[in-house]
Amino acid sequence: MVRNLEYPKKAQNTVKRYNSRGTYDLGAIHSIINTTSVLHVSFPPAPDNPFPAILPMIGVMGSFEYPSASLDEPLDCYLHGYVSSRVMRLARDSPNGLPVSVAATKVDGLVLSLTPNSHSYNYRSAVLQGYGRVVDSDEEKIYAMQLITNKVVANRWENTRVPPDNVEMTSTTILRVKIETGSGKIRQGGPHDEAKDEKRDEITEKVWTGVIPVSEVFGEPIPSATNRVKQLPAYIDSYVTETNQSSRELSLNAVNEP
Amino acid sequence: MVRNLEYPKKAQNTVKRYNSRGTYDLGAIHSIINTTSVLHVSFPPAPDNPFPAILPMIGVMGSFEYPSASLDEPLDCYLHGYVSSRVMRLARDSPNGLPVSVAATKVDGLVLSLTPNSHSYNYRSAVLQGYGRVVDSDEEKIYAMQLITNKVVANRWENTRVPPDNVEMTSTTILRVKIETGSGKIRQGGPHDEAKDEKRDEITEKVWTGVIPVSEVFGEPIPSATNRVKQLPAYIDSYVTETNQSSRELSLNAVNEP
Repeated sequence: MVRNLEYPKKAQNTVKRYNSRGTYDLGAIHSIINTTSVLHVSFPPAPDNPFPAILPMIGVMGSFEYPSASLDEPLDCYLHGYVSSRVMRLARDSPNGLPVSVAATKVDGLVLSLTPNSHSYNYRSAVLQGYGRVVDSDEEKIYAMQLITNKVVANRWENTRVPPDNVEMTSTTILRVKIETGSGKIRQGGPHDEAKDEKRDEITEKVWTGVIPVSEVFGEPIPSATNRVKQLPAYIDSYVTETNQSSRELSLNAVNEP
Repeated sequence: MVRNLEYPKKAQNTVKRYNSRGTYDLGAIHSIINTTSVLHVSFPPAPDNPFPAILPMIGVMGSFEYPSASLDEPLDCYLHGYVSSRVMRLARDSPNGLPVSVAATKVDGLVLSLTPNSHSYNYRSAVLQGYGRVVDSDEEKIYAMQLITNKVVANRWENTRVPPDNVEMTSTTILRVKIETGSGKIRQGGPHDEAKDEKRDEITEKVWTGVIPVSEVFGEPIPSATNRVKQLPAYIDSYVTETNQSSRELSLNAVNEP
């Protein structure tokens, strides 16, 4: 019998509202992180400031120690991009790592019901919490840079000018978040109305109910002014086609009750 | 001469990295919030927990006091949806409001350059910081519920069963965030490579560079099993068409240098 790995339920990550939608399954949570183009990363406020910091960053799940680990195994979250020097300085100054929360949400559909209060989204969302440390070893940095680049476009890394030179290695900072807890929430299906509305003809004959599927779609790639590769490479072409197809399928599958 | 209103620059909201991309313009920032389907809302960690809380929520800019205020005027941020009771309880328990940070990010394109380190996204992102209070008056609550519903689908509110009944009014909680600071970042244009790579033929002849436009797209609306309105109403049909067109245009316009 195979048992999926789950994140431990602690006070701060236990899904309370609509808890039937909650998941602690590593594979499900990691997959939401890996298919979301921008993560939102939050860390505690500075001493003189009441507001938590929040930044959009690019991130991906991976394991430098066990590179062959699959998505449903314990993994770290590697973060890069739009990184204020502040988060990196704070991480360097925290002997136990900087406590960060990482959130990813994908909307799969607008769920339109008879009354505004039961409107909803179909969505997949995940939150990870853990301690962020700056990656120091060049080997691990290159491992993470490659994962992140290939998350944006599959096989991109090996089709660019690599490896990074010394200046690029020094100017790039990667944060490795060791995960303490995680949780996810997935909503699928059509609208759920209450009997009090469903049995009133003057409402049901007037209000359209259903789902508008939502997906993130890639347009036709546009070469830069200086591009000299005349034909769009096959790895980009198929990545665009396959990602679009899988995004559309996910949004359509979400319309059906799980 | 018309001068656009800007958020004050304070330590916590001043854009440091690539600061030419930064904006403090109210209209630009509010428009990013209003066109993003899910906002990520962060609030300070509980005393026994090092990690800031982060939640996906639906939100919209508005002013109950000056409902005719336009998007470039001072506005509050109304939040609803996927609201843990914790954030609402904390807000009720904070005499000065709960300090929250609200983030919105839209990706408009994948920017592919010669070397992984200069890869980027075209994007629009905004962060607001302010104090959240639970809305108590029924009048303001209905104002906010209407704004939020019509943000999801324009004109939806008036085409559903409204007004909410007593049970619905009691079970719905809306958070009004009074904004203290805000900032935005917008990246547009093609890839920027360095001369050291651009002048090497063996690189430029091998690596495709350009932009893959990205946009959030609505699919064909799918009626629910219990829907009795045979024809898709015109307000939904035109909302889907117009939103798709404007998302595609935004992602294509972002390819050009500003």
